[in-house]
Amino acid sequence: MPGCYRLATAQGSTKSTAIRPMKFYDFRPSPSPTKVRIVIAEKGLSIPTESINLRELEQQRAEYTEKHPGATVPMLELDDGTYLTESLAISHYLDRVFPEPNLLGTDPKEQALVLMWHDIATFEGYLGVQELLRNSSGAFQGRALPGILPYEQIPALAERGRKRTELFLDKLERRLHSSDHLAVGRYTYADIAAYVYVRFAARVLGNDPLPARPHLSRWTAEIAARPAVRAATG
Amino acid sequence: MPGCYRLATAQGSTKSTAIRPMKFYDFRPSPSPTKVRIVIAEKGLSIPTESINLRELEQQRAEYTEKHPGATVPMLELDDGTYLTESLAISHYLDRVFPEPNLLGTDPKEQALVLMWHDIATFEGYLGVQELLRNSSGAFQGRALPGILPYEQIPALAERGRKRTELFLDKLERRLHSSDHLAVGRYTYADIAAYVYVRFAARVLGNDPLPARPHLSRWTAEIAARPAVRAATG
Repeated sequence: MPGCYRLATAQGSTKSTAIRPMKFYDFRPSPSPTKVRIVIAEKGLSIPTESINLRELEQQRAEYTEKHPGATVPMLELDDGTYLTESLAISHYLDRVFPEPNLLGTDPKEQALVLMWHDIATFEGYLGVQELLRNSSGAFQGRALPGILPYEQIPALAERGRKRTELFLDKLERRLHSSDHLAVGRYTYADIAAYVYVRFAARVLGNDPLPARPHLSRWTAEIAARPAVRAATG
Repeated sequence: MPGCYRLATAQGSTKSTAIRPMKFYDFRPSPSPTKVRIVIAEKGLSIPTESINLRELEQQRAEYTEKHPGATVPMLELDDGTYLTESLAISHYLDRVFPEPNLLGTDPKEQALVLMWHDIATFEGYLGVQELLRNSSGAFQGRALPGILPYEQIPALAERGRKRTELFLDKLERRLHSSDHLAVGRYTYADIAAYVYVRFAARVLGNDPLPARPHLSRWTAEIAARPAVRAATG
C-alpha cells in the first residue's frame, strides 16, 4: 500500500495503518542513513524510499538541493512538506511518532544517557573514521567534508583520523566490559549509532578491529543478529 | 539554601523547592558549558556549581577524570551519582525535569527541528570555530582536540576552520532572513547553541561578523538582551 505505513506486529502479521505519506531519502552504503534505516526496521515501518546515489553525486543535483541545500542524506519528508535532515533528528521524530519499541529512552535520565553516548560515539567515532576516509581515499578528493562545498584533503588528518578511530574502539571496549549495552541496560539508539560506526571503521581501517576486543565483539555480534539490523544492513 | 533549587517566578520572587542535590561542573569562558548555563538561567534554577579551570588544565586532574575520563566540561552530577556529560544530553535532561519554559520542543516535529538545527550549528559552526582556534592558538599546542589526549596542531586546519566558520555564519544569515528563529517560531535550544557559537566565532575570528549580516545581527541582539542570557554570559 504505497504511501502508507505497515506496522508489523510481534507475531509477524501486518496491519495497514494509513497515517500519512512520508518519504525517506536514503543511500544504503552510507553510515548516517543506515542508522535511520535500522530505526525504521526496528519499528516495523515501511516508508516509501528514494535512493540518492552519493557515488554519482546525486545529492548535488538541483532537484535534491532545492529540498536540502546542505546536500546530505538521510532526509525525511513529512506529510506537511517539512524536510527533516540530520540522522539524530529524524530518528528522534520516528521514535516519538512510533513509540514501540522505544529506542531513545523512556524517562529523562535514560533519554539523556542515550543522547550522551550517541554524541560521544559520533564526535569520537564517526568524526574519526570520516577524517581517515575522506582525507585518504581518492574517491573523496576535493570533498574532504560532507556536503556540496569543496574541501581539499589534508594528509595529516588521515593519520589523526586513524588514531581517533582506534581510541574510539578502545573506549567502546572498556564500556562494554562493564556494561552489556552502551547507554542503559538495554539496546537503544546509542547502540545503533555506535554499531554503524564500528562497521564503518572496520571497512575504512582495512583491518578487523574485533579480534583484539572481545567485549566489542560480543556486543557487535548480538546487534548484527537482530532481524531488523539484518534487514536494514543486508 | 545550598543543595536545593530555587525556582524564580516571573515576578522575581523565589520559592524553595527541595528536589535533590545535583552539581554542575562549569567553566564560564568555554562555549559548551555556556549553553547549559543559559538553559539553567532560563529555567530560573540555582544549581550548586564547581568551576573546572580549563586554562589550568583542572579537567585533567585525577579527581575530575575519575568522574569523567573524557575530561571535558560541562558535566552534571545527578542525585543518584550518575555523571552526565555532553551539553545536549545535559540540556535535554534539564528540559524534561524542569519543563518550563520549554526549550527543546513540545511535539515530535518541534523536537526534531530543534535537534536538526542544533546539529547543523554544531557540526558546521562549533566544529569550524574549534578547528580554527585549536590549530592556530599557542594555548592549544599539543591539544588540537578537546579531552585529555595529545593531538598536534595542523596549520591547514586553521585555514579550513576559518572558511567553515564564515560559511556557517552565512548559513545563519540566510536562515534568519526567512525566519525569526532558527528551528521553530520561537526561541529554543537551537538558538541558544547557535548564539553561543556566534559569540565564540566573533572572539576567535578576530573580526566582528555581525555588521555584514543584518539578520544575524537582529537575532543576536534579541538573544543577548534576554535576562537569562545576560545573567549566564555576563
